[in-house]
Amino acid sequence: MKKLKLGFPKGSLQDSTVELFRKAGTRISVSSRSYYPISDDEELEIMLVRSQEMARYVQDGFFDAGLTGYDWICESGAKVKEICELNYAKSGFRPVRWVLAVPEDSKIKSIKDLQGKRVATELLNYTKKYFAKNKVKADIEFSWGATEAKAGKLVDAIVELTETGSSLRANKLRVIDEMLSSTTRFIANTVAFEDAWKKEKIESMSLLLRGALATEGMVGLKMNVPLQFLEKISAVLPALKKPTISQLSDKNWVALEIIIEERTVKKIIPALKRSGATDIIEYPLNKIIY
Amino acid sequence: MKKLKLGFPKGSLQDSTVELFRKAGTRISVSSRSYYPISDDEELEIMLVRSQEMARYVQDGFFDAGLTGYDWICESGAKVKEICELNYAKSGFRPVRWVLAVPEDSKIKSIKDLQGKRVATELLNYTKKYFAKNKVKADIEFSWGATEAKAGKLVDAIVELTETGSSLRANKLRVIDEMLSSTTRFIANTVAFEDAWKKEKIESMSLLLRGALATEGMVGLKMNVPLQFLEKISAVLPALKKPTISQLSDKNWVALEIIIEERTVKKIIPALKRSGATDIIEYPLNKIIY
Amino acid sequence: MKKLKLGFPKGSLQDSTVELFRKAGTRISVSSRSYYPISDDEELEIMLVRSQEMARYVQDGFFDAGLTGYDWICESGAKVKEICELNYAKSGFRPVRWVLAVPEDSKIKSIKDLQGKRVATELLNYTKKYFAKNKVKADIEFSWGATEAKAGKLVDAIVELTETGSSLRANKLRVIDEMLSSTTRFIANTVAFEDAWKKEKIESMSLLLRGALATEGMVGLKMNVPLQFLEKISAVLPALKKPTISQLSDKNWVALEIIIEERTVKKIIPALKRSGATDIIEYPLNKIIY
Amino acid sequence: MKKLKLGFPKGSLQDSTVELFRKAGTRISVSSRSYYPISDDEELEIMLVRSQEMARYVQDGFFDAGLTGYDWICESGAKVKEICELNYAKSGFRPVRWVLAVPEDSKIKSIKDLQGKRVATELLNYTKKYFAKNKVKADIEFSWGATEAKAGKLVDAIVELTETGSSLRANKLRVIDEMLSSTTRFIANTVAFEDAWKKEKIESMSLLLRGALATEGMVGLKMNVPLQFLEKISAVLPALKKPTISQLSDKNWVALEIIIEERTVKKIIPALKRSGATDIIEYPLNKIIY
Amino acid sequence: MKKLKLGFPKGSLQDSTVELFRKAGTRISVSSRSYYPISDDEELEIMLVRSQEMARYVQDGFFDAGLTGYDWICESGAKVKEICELNYAKSGFRPVRWVLAVPEDSKIKSIKDLQGKRVATELLNYTKKYFAKNKVKADIEFSWGATEAKAGKLVDAIVELTETGSSLRANKLRVIDEMLSSTTRFIANTVAFEDAWKKEKIESMSLLLRGALATEGMVGLKMNVPLQFLEKISAVLPALKKPTISQLSDKNWVALEIIIEERTVKKIIPALKRSGATDIIEYPLNKIIY
Amino acid sequence: MKKLKLGFPKGSLQDSTVELFRKAGTRISVSSRSYYPISDDEELEIMLVRSQEMARYVQDGFFDAGLTGYDWICESGAKVKEICELNYAKSGFRPVRWVLAVPEDSKIKSIKDLQGKRVATELLNYTKKYFAKNKVKADIEFSWGATEAKAGKLVDAIVELTETGSSLRANKLRVIDEMLSSTTRFIANTVAFEDAWKKEKIESMSLLLRGALATEGMVGLKMNVPLQFLEKISAVLPALKKPTISQLSDKNWVALEIIIEERTVKKIIPALKRSGATDIIEYPLNKIIY
Repeated sequence: MKKLKLGFPKGSLQDSTVELFRKAGTRISVSSRSYYPISDDEELEIMLVRSQEMARYVQDGFFDAGLTGYDWICESGAKVKEICELNYAKSGFRPVRWVLAVPEDSKIKSIKDLQGKRVATELLNYTKKYFAKNKVKADIEFSWGATEAKAGKLVDAIVELTETGSSLRANKLRVIDEMLSSTTRFIANTVAFEDAWKKEKIESMSLLLRGALATEGMVGLKMNVPLQFLEKISAVLPALKKPTISQLSDKNWVALEIIIEERTVKKIIPALKRSGATDIIEYPLNKIIY
Repeated sequence: MKKLKLGFPKGSLQDSTVELFRKAGTRISVSSRSYYPISDDEELEIMLVRSQEMARYVQDGFFDAGLTGYDWICESGAKVKEICELNYAKSGFRPVRWVLAVPEDSKIKSIKDLQGKRVATELLNYTKKYFAKNKVKADIEFSWGATEAKAGKLVDAIVELTETGSSLRANKLRVIDEMLSSTTRFIANTVAFEDAWKKEKIESMSLLLRGALATEGMVGLKMNVPLQFLEKISAVLPALKKPTISQLSDKNWVALEIIIEERTVKKIIPALKRSGATDIIEYPLNKIIY
Repeated sequence: MKKLKLGFPKGSLQDSTVELFRKAGTRISVSSRSYYPISDDEELEIMLVRSQEMARYVQDGFFDAGLTGYDWICESGAKVKEICELNYAKSGFRPVRWVLAVPEDSKIKSIKDLQGKRVATELLNYTKKYFAKNKVKADIEFSWGATEAKAGKLVDAIVELTETGSSLRANKLRVIDEMLSSTTRFIANTVAFEDAWKKEKIESMSLLLRGALATEGMVGLKMNVPLQFLEKISAVLPALKKPTISQLSDKNWVALEIIIEERTVKKIIPALKRSGATDIIEYPLNKIIY
Repeated sequence: MKKLKLGFPKGSLQDSTVELFRKAGTRISVSSRSYYPISDDEELEIMLVRSQEMARYVQDGFFDAGLTGYDWICESGAKVKEICELNYAKSGFRPVRWVLAVPEDSKIKSIKDLQGKRVATELLNYTKKYFAKNKVKADIEFSWGATEAKAGKLVDAIVELTETGSSLRANKLRVIDEMLSSTTRFIANTVAFEDAWKKEKIESMSLLLRGALATEGMVGLKMNVPLQFLEKISAVLPALKKPTISQLSDKNWVALEIIIEERTVKKIIPALKRSGATDIIEYPLNKIIY
Repeated sequence: MKKLKLGFPKGSLQDSTVELFRKAGTRISVSSRSYYPISDDEELEIMLVRSQEMARYVQDGFFDAGLTGYDWICESGAKVKEICELNYAKSGFRPVRWVLAVPEDSKIKSIKDLQGKRVATELLNYTKKYFAKNKVKADIEFSWGATEAKAGKLVDAIVELTETGSSLRANKLRVIDEMLSSTTRFIANTVAFEDAWKKEKIESMSLLLRGALATEGMVGLKMNVPLQFLEKISAVLPALKKPTISQLSDKNWVALEIIIEERTVKKIIPALKRSGATDIIEYPLNKIIY
Repeated sequence: MKKLKLGFPKGSLQDSTVELFRKAGTRISVSSRSYYPISDDEELEIMLVRSQEMARYVQDGFFDAGLTGYDWICESGAKVKEICELNYAKSGFRPVRWVLAVPEDSKIKSIKDLQGKRVATELLNYTKKYFAKNKVKADIEFSWGATEAKAGKLVDAIVELTETGSSLRANKLRVIDEMLSSTTRFIANTVAFEDAWKKEKIESMSLLLRGALATEGMVGLKMNVPLQFLEKISAVLPALKKPTISQLSDKNWVALEIIIEERTVKKIIPALKRSGATDIIEYPLNKIIY
């Protein structure tokens, strides 16, 4: 049987990626004692590696494809084919950001003020390039962790990952620059992607992963609509997507069905109700492929 | 941006109210260290207060609206507008009850026998009024907790909250009167409710909260029905709600869809099957707005 | 009110059986301190007994019906009516197997080599019959547990339950025979099944339990299809079941709906998309009654 | 058998009081479902009540003795005999404090500025007396909880319990007065204390409870000392207590043993070593009765 | 290296036996995935087996020695040498009891009333012998578990294990006879015990296990005593054991040290104090070998 | 007040180091949200940093002293003063080892066979030096983690940390060289160590930390010995340390006290008993300073 060698991100992206695959129809089971997760897709051969090293091993052909953060693709400098962006990161459905930060009470206002200073970061190569591009010479050192505690104590500034900013606030840090915004990427080895079977496999996976991700925050609405109110009710719905309208046995009524963002429901349902829709139900979805 | 100041019940109603809002489309996140929950509805400004104090602070205008139990609204004596009843309480979808109870082996049979006796309760004011209404003079004292242990030891009777009665049984108590049955209420400050924007906001919230609560124990059924059996099958369904019937491509068949109570499914599905329906599927719902 | 006395399996099948009943529409609540689970079906009177003893107590009329494994029905030798097979076992939706196993490095290759040897098992009677049928005389002894550790130490071979084989591997055992494959069975007392009310009750329960089990691994797909592609798209779908096709308001389009196995989704959705289907959504199911 | 009726504090003092009794030689076992803890001292009859109500029930003779905080004795105004102070509180071996606090950015600087303002507290009576004593008229209202969140929002100031001050800091509050410092007290009913048997029982309990508490932070030191260094070494030891000195078989050596505070060990051991002591060992204690 | 093959009880005795060995100076580490615990005593070769089967395997020489309950030694009928009784059982330092029990409201008053009745038990052989000895013919059947639920439902009486009686009370059962009281025993194979090395090993283990068990509930007391009070103080102490008395440097004082039962401390310490002892300290013990 | 700036190891050494300080008499409390642990020694100013970076920051004077592993001191190449070795590591009281490992079935037998091969490790600098010293040229690459999974898949060999070897076995790796054995070290900045106050502080800490560590696996034994058996009994005891012998009031008896290794107790106690010692008790220790 042909197999696709897939690199799977160990660590902070691991659980959310397992969950995304599950929604996309592939169950992946990671044992705490093994680096080789088991899946119910026999065409996959999966191995866990750290996000930091994924792009390098995909580039070198140890894997046909893999998932990792855009930040670590940049940091590694590896040459890989990006198949699609998957809009989630460590703990949610928004990008993580790498920011340049200093203590709240520091006199440093921008990257320019860091000339000759000491900066600690886990994202060493990207930070060096970024400072060079900004024509600032600083002593950029690798940090093994606990980076946010160092600013103002052991170094002048840090470059650190943030999602909500709460860790920065807790450590009384001020952001002076946002260097990089990053989401997850599905990447492939360029040679592997020329193989017809692997290409189709990778593209089907991409379709299903994006389909599963698309349901995030989406719900289905179904309602009965008297024909005379159909136009008015349609005006309430988001313009972009056309609803599915089917004839009921009673010729004066149609059933209307549409997929909308869950966060708009609290505005739309009261408006639909006021416009004459009845028997409105909202139901959950597993996958959406437009 | 206009804001609605919302009092949120801290304590036993808290988790179930967060869950109800989530079903209604508003995510509320309560941190263990903050009294100000964060929500994804930017029009809300939320603060946690104890159920016991909610009605007073809504009455005094510290909040535009709030959620609390009917029991504590009564106890406080506050003047507030009740928007809707939400049929859940501490740990489920049934009212809690405040009962007057005595030890199983007590000679006291009714409230009348408590003349001159000692009664402990957390619901002090309501109990005093209740005894006055019954023309019984007793020494009603405030209890800080562990009330059910006091009956027969430290006092003659207690007035205590019960849901299933199991705590009463465990403490070998006998109920001699049910004083008050209570569910959750969505209440508003009377002045705030005259503001047009706040009124619409409060009413939309009420619609969605009731819609979310309405799905509790409800499911959707969908089936294919040969036209000749349609009447027979319709007779099996609950009389109150009309099903949605749509034409299939095959002119001799229709699709029939209906929302019913989950607990009736075990009678209805076998009956539908016997009446000729096929491909019956049951699916879950998020919200129902009739 | 008439009551059906139901024996419920205590132990390894307990949680999965509670969950199956819940999907089938009956909530059963098992307290850790009581052998009498409470349900929301007032026609049921439920008692927990061990799977090993279920068939005997159903045969003797202590219960009208019960659920237990096929293995323990065989072991007990009891005469009961099997209503239906329910395709789940201890920890999943596949049968458990009782295997005859020896240490990996043992010279024993088949049951024939066990003449005069010592064999330990919890499934004593069935094993004795199996050896007799194979005309092998061995010393078959009852094992109270920890059976897999005994092979090669305290006995020559064991007969042990296995689901995934991982416990056998961990104890370095080799399977030399598969004696029995077992799933859960819904069984009834033969006399009780002649009572009309009990018969209908048992058969309705069987219909709903099978309906709930049928959704395992099944999902609903719904999509919009241009009439000119309907044939092509239908060819992609599994041949066995006909989809439900309903007319949309736009006469050139139909809506197509079908229930399929979740594990086939990763092949079918990309194919549907390529064949011209749009707005494909996948949704979850509670129950299916074909 | 004679029995001493003992009120045991339910809630925040409960676990630490159980632990203190265990060190004092009496095992008390509290079941989560009973208000009557079981002990291995058959002369005790124990009941759980809330700290807030303890003094009242001891005063009224429902209990012969009880343990509760000094704060709630004051709040209740009950007349009881204090047997001894036990120097622990909610979560450690230091007093809790009730403080008057306002928002950090409030203009209120002292209790005098609260004339005509609104103050919330759980310690209602004591606070009213304290304001009266300070000749400040304010609206003191009972708070059911979440008090620290109210300052600056629902009231102008609060009176709240604090141990470390961390909750005050988290809620950005400033202390403007410390009203009351409180530890646990062992109290008795004045009539019960006149009964000879009860008096001796209560005093033995007091001796053992204080003995167990005295070991907190105390350790034993034992060392061998050459006679010629005995004076020098004795000078290093705390002046207050005399060490136990015993003759070793070798006439030029003595063994020296002393109980000291654990926190002084880090100064004393290096000094002992420098002064010539050898084989210094530190060992744990269960109880100390001087 | 010579090895002692030791059978270790898997199940309810396992944790307390590991803990007893630890106190006796041998660390045993049981992995959840292996039947061969690891110890820091290289002369031991340990295997887990169920208590029910221990005596049989010790008798047959698969183990040189083992630990199990007296009840299962009786049930098995195996011939083994009992080295010592270890006074602990499932969950504490008291025997477990096998009792004959019937429903509280049963008419059965004694074993004699069970003639011709049905009895369920896990302790099948012992129960059969016990009934025979009492000349009562009953249908004794093996129970796989959940035995206490069966009395009055599926059988007339049960024989079941009890420690505190709470499970009997919860199931509303009445004890009509106590059949067997059981503690843990250290047993040996009779042939192995004739080997000199194994005999000494087994006896050393017995000494240390008993020494560790002896500290249960024992503590050390140490105090300073003026010579003139020595006699008076000695009279307070338990008569059986002589205290260790050593001379202090001050010729008028001695130090007195004694091991006593912890539960007597609450009487003895106040008495010692009243008799003139000072600086009484209580300290913990690991092991006692008289 | 003078302060000693102390670097505290964040991560795998953290909990065991907190525990060691506690035994040494200094309580350190690490909050999950702060990098500045709080201690009850006011002369300490503590900050958490990763073990990997400790030596560098001590060398540069950001800390006066710190604790870290010998491996990371080597890796960093920093110049610091080693005060003492503390014989514990990640999870116990034995060194960790960095080993060079290959897959079990690899043809590579020694470091020499790695010429031109690919090696992954977290200990990059030390490994490069080690290979240079062995005159082997290999491609040594930094590993971000999951290193043991890489051998044979992504690289030819790895250099990885091991304590018990179980992770190596689980990943089917074979050790071909042991590069470095490492325990914890207490290190100081060379300039800070010239300050008299800091020097004494550091040396006192070293004395107490070693004293606390010395009790690991040590216990106290105390027994009564008849004078005529003293010589015989002394012969049973370890030769190295002299016991403390004190005269009892009865002139024919002495008390003998000694500190010994717990693991020798199981040989020594039976021997002491046979030699005539009585009332042998074993007790726990907190600290030992010889």
